[in-house]
Amino acid sequence: MANKPLILITNDDGYEADGYRLLIDLMKTLGDVVAISTLESTSAMGHAVTMNQPLRLKTISEVPGFTEYISNGTPADNIKLGKHLLLDRMPDLVVSGINHGSNAAINIIYSGTMAAALEGAMDGIPAIGFSLAEYGQHPDFSHVSEFVLKITEKVLKDALPKGIALNVNFPKKSADPVKGIKTARQAKAVWKETYEERIDPFGRKYYWMSGVFLDGDQRVDTDEKALAENYVAVVPVQCDFTARELLDTLTF
Amino acid sequence: MANKPLILITNDDGYEADGYRLLIDLMKTLGDVVAISTLESTSAMGHAVTMNQPLRLKTISEVPGFTEYISNGTPADNIKLGKHLLLDRMPDLVVSGINHGSNAAINIIYSGTMAAALEGAMDGIPAIGFSLAEYGQHPDFSHVSEFVLKITEKVLKDALPKGIALNVNFPKKSADPVKGIKTARQAKAVWKETYEERIDPFGRKYYWMSGVFLDGDQRVDTDEKALAENYVAVVPVQCDFTARELLDTLTF
Repeated sequence: MANKPLILITNDDGYEADGYRLLIDLMKTLGDVVAISTLESTSAMGHAVTMNQPLRLKTISEVPGFTEYISNGTPADNIKLGKHLLLDRMPDLVVSGINHGSNAAINIIYSGTMAAALEGAMDGIPAIGFSLAEYGQHPDFSHVSEFVLKITEKVLKDALPKGIALNVNFPKKSADPVKGIKTARQAKAVWKETYEERIDPFGRKYYWMSGVFLDGDQRVDTDEKALAENYVAVVPVQCDFTARELLDTLTF
Repeated sequence: MANKPLILITNDDGYEADGYRLLIDLMKTLGDVVAISTLESTSAMGHAVTMNQPLRLKTISEVPGFTEYISNGTPADNIKLGKHLLLDRMPDLVVSGINHGSNAAINIIYSGTMAAALEGAMDGIPAIGFSLAEYGQHPDFSHVSEFVLKITEKVLKDALPKGIALNVNFPKKSADPVKGIKTARQAKAVWKETYEERIDPFGRKYYWMSGVFLDGDQRVDTDEKALAENYVAVVPVQCDFTARELLDTLTF
């Protein structure tokens, strides 16, 4: 590209989240940035989009090379708004995150962060979702910047096959240095939910969902294994749910 | 199974939707049914789950062989509630729908109907999402019942490989009879969104999302092709986003 690359950014933890502010700062060193997020967290929105209510947008920053919006949409909405309303041309890169919490294994399907990245990929735009395997408001991101830049620079230089996004998960900060980057597959690990029953002040039952994460996947090349070994896990992902191995055998 | 199969049902068009009531009636002929849906439509929720507010449940019917609940959750929540709170044992089958509108091609990723089916599959429960390629409150479902029963009976008899769900889409009712059932792959077709700008009574801008569906996939074995030829399209699907063909070549 002749000029600076145009980078579209969103996240699902709200526009004030540490991981988002860091990602914006890093991307500003690589190109022109348009960022669009929400006032509050929209975690676990999956690939929800907003059809039953109108969308609203507010410009909160507009300086050369950087524009920032707040919307009332989901992460997937935000990338659609960027692609089809806010930008004069398709962005050169869509990045999402850095999520506070892992999007490895089955978490990808619940993840607004990864929905946003996939919204880029489905239009043929190189796209990366970044997540840190640590929850909380202010996790330690000090070990991730060099890898965010390295992976993003490679994608800007070499692009990605059409339709592909990267699901990048960083291990939680530890005393040991990160060992490097591993290309991995999505682990077959699931959540087993539990529901805590409570009684509201009016005598009515309600439930809070929580759960435990069960990784029974013994394969050595999964994202969960890479994280457990203190590697950055990079899974190339796409939006095709087809179980191709069954196409020839499933009959009715 | 010694006794009648236990069938867990949800949808994303609300509990009064024609397609849901029809699916419940059909499933009652095959087993014991537990149905859980929402008061209103929750379309385009994707795989969203509810973490930021408590869930509530109301029992609206309880007779031998049939229990029905209403929740304030998403379709994915509803299957989780069924699996982990409401049922004494894992169901033998999860079915979802019949959705008012197609979930073929990329629609699967925005679909609460298919998120619910995948919630079954990820716990190893045979699962089917049914959708009709016609929108609106009262589409003509008269051509689908025989196929719903045929496909469901086969799945109850033969099960499905662990982790697999079926994404079943019916063509819109036409003068011609449905030609049969085709196993197909998810078409590479996408939405191109447009945003209609309006001004509210207080002078502020807002936007309604709409879009056009673009199917540029020339392959002959896609779900979109099957529907266009008046077949029932059955795509075997799974929750693995890994682009496996890139695992050996993607390096950093």
